[in-house]
Amino acid sequence: MKVKNRLLNFGNNIIYQDNDCFLFSLDSMLLANFVTIKLSDKKIIDMCSGNAPIPMLLTFRTKARIFGVELQEYIYNMGLDSIVENKMDKQITFINDDVKNIRKLFESDSFDIVTCNPPYFKYKSDSLVNLNDKKTIARHEVVLKLEDVIINARYLLKNGGTFAMIHRPERLVEIIDLMRKNGIEPKKIRMVYPKLEKDANMILIEGVKNGKSGLKILKPLVIYDDDNKYVSEVRKMFGGVEDVAEKL
Amino acid sequence: MKVKNRLLNFGNNIIYQDNDCFLFSLDSMLLANFVTIKLSDKKIIDMCSGNAPIPMLLTFRTKARIFGVELQEYIYNMGLDSIVENKMDKQITFINDDVKNIRKLFESDSFDIVTCNPPYFKYKSDSLVNLNDKKTIARHEVVLKLEDVIINARYLLKNGGTFAMIHRPERLVEIIDLMRKNGIEPKKIRMVYPKLEKDANMILIEGVKNGKSGLKILKPLVIYDDDNKYVSEVRKMFGGVEDVAEKL
Repeated sequence: MKVKNRLLNFGNNIIYQDNDCFLFSLDSMLLANFVTIKLSDKKIIDMCSGNAPIPMLLTFRTKARIFGVELQEYIYNMGLDSIVENKMDKQITFINDDVKNIRKLFESDSFDIVTCNPPYFKYKSDSLVNLNDKKTIARHEVVLKLEDVIINARYLLKNGGTFAMIHRPERLVEIIDLMRKNGIEPKKIRMVYPKLEKDANMILIEGVKNGKSGLKILKPLVIYDDDNKYVSEVRKMFGGVEDVAEKL
Repeated sequence: MKVKNRLLNFGNNIIYQDNDCFLFSLDSMLLANFVTIKLSDKKIIDMCSGNAPIPMLLTFRTKARIFGVELQEYIYNMGLDSIVENKMDKQITFINDDVKNIRKLFESDSFDIVTCNPPYFKYKSDSLVNLNDKKTIARHEVVLKLEDVIINARYLLKNGGTFAMIHRPERLVEIIDLMRKNGIEPKKIRMVYPKLEKDANMILIEGVKNGKSGLKILKPLVIYDDDNKYVSEVRKMFGGVEDVAEKL
């Protein structure tokens, strides 16, 4: 069922969600905060946008023109409704298409930044998933593979442009491998640990097209403190509003 | 000047050091604690052993036969003196040679585990270092390069054997690349952060020869707490003795 939620504590912005789909989640929030944005950046594109949390969150950080691409029409429409209702449609152009069609939609070397919160899980023919399910397409590499994401990021980025992604630690080796093969040099990684005593469950990674080698591993991002409350850094991302944060 | 220090709080073990050389440091301690050792492991080799901290520390974790290789004779001799004085010479065989001669010294596919705390810094012809200096050789890739380390680790390891190394975050991309090129699949990484609010300054990485892909990023290792004291995990590595720990 489509419901209207608040999009954090930024004015009265909302986000339409549907519990049967992949929900706007902490991942999008972390990526929208992680990516390096320069004042001079003019064009940003978010691939696999879902119901558009990343394009919308980025409007709070930049005046750049923002594009979003989402394949699934029902989810796309929720995103579009949110963008319009938040009056963000002048800054955000939201497109209902397959990331694999990106060469038909955009010129090469035309973006300063590409972001992506892609499907995390490898799809195997014996995976117990429903191929037509909206959540499956958002979470498993049924339609779009990691390599497609990175090849298209390379195509879209200007020389020296920035690619930022959130993904799972078990794919890090493959991610680094594919980024380098496609001329995107990893420059910045931040590990996301659910708690200080837990293994990382997400990684934030940023690379620069044709960049020089030299990686920084940023300070750890530990999500919950010992009392299972969000740490202050995460609370601030949510605009400091506990009740909104606790829904995610 | 050669001095005798305590080797942690394990009995009355000592380690000979010289302030003009590369000192036994936290790095060796972290690596000796990080590496996965199975009960069935029979043969371990540590490359670039310096004054032998890693071979000696490993004796507290395993009954396996341990080999160490160190090129620099003066440093090697300090290590050998410590091994003998600690009565560890039945378990440890310490060899004064160049890691690049390893094919002459050992058979291929003969070790369960290879460890290495190698020189961290790339050497450029304009690097302001003294090429004959003992510290330079221990810290810069003047004599031994990262690729030499990994090629020799591959040679030494049995199929399914474990390679563990400590290094700097800025080299992680290259390390992963070289490990995979040489058939050592990264399986376990632990980031070392000096403090919770600081970027990582060391990485611990372990791979398996001809292993399957799938990486774990272990819980963060934060060295100092807010009061600049070692956290309890690090204190425990030092045998719980603060005064020894504080020297490093």
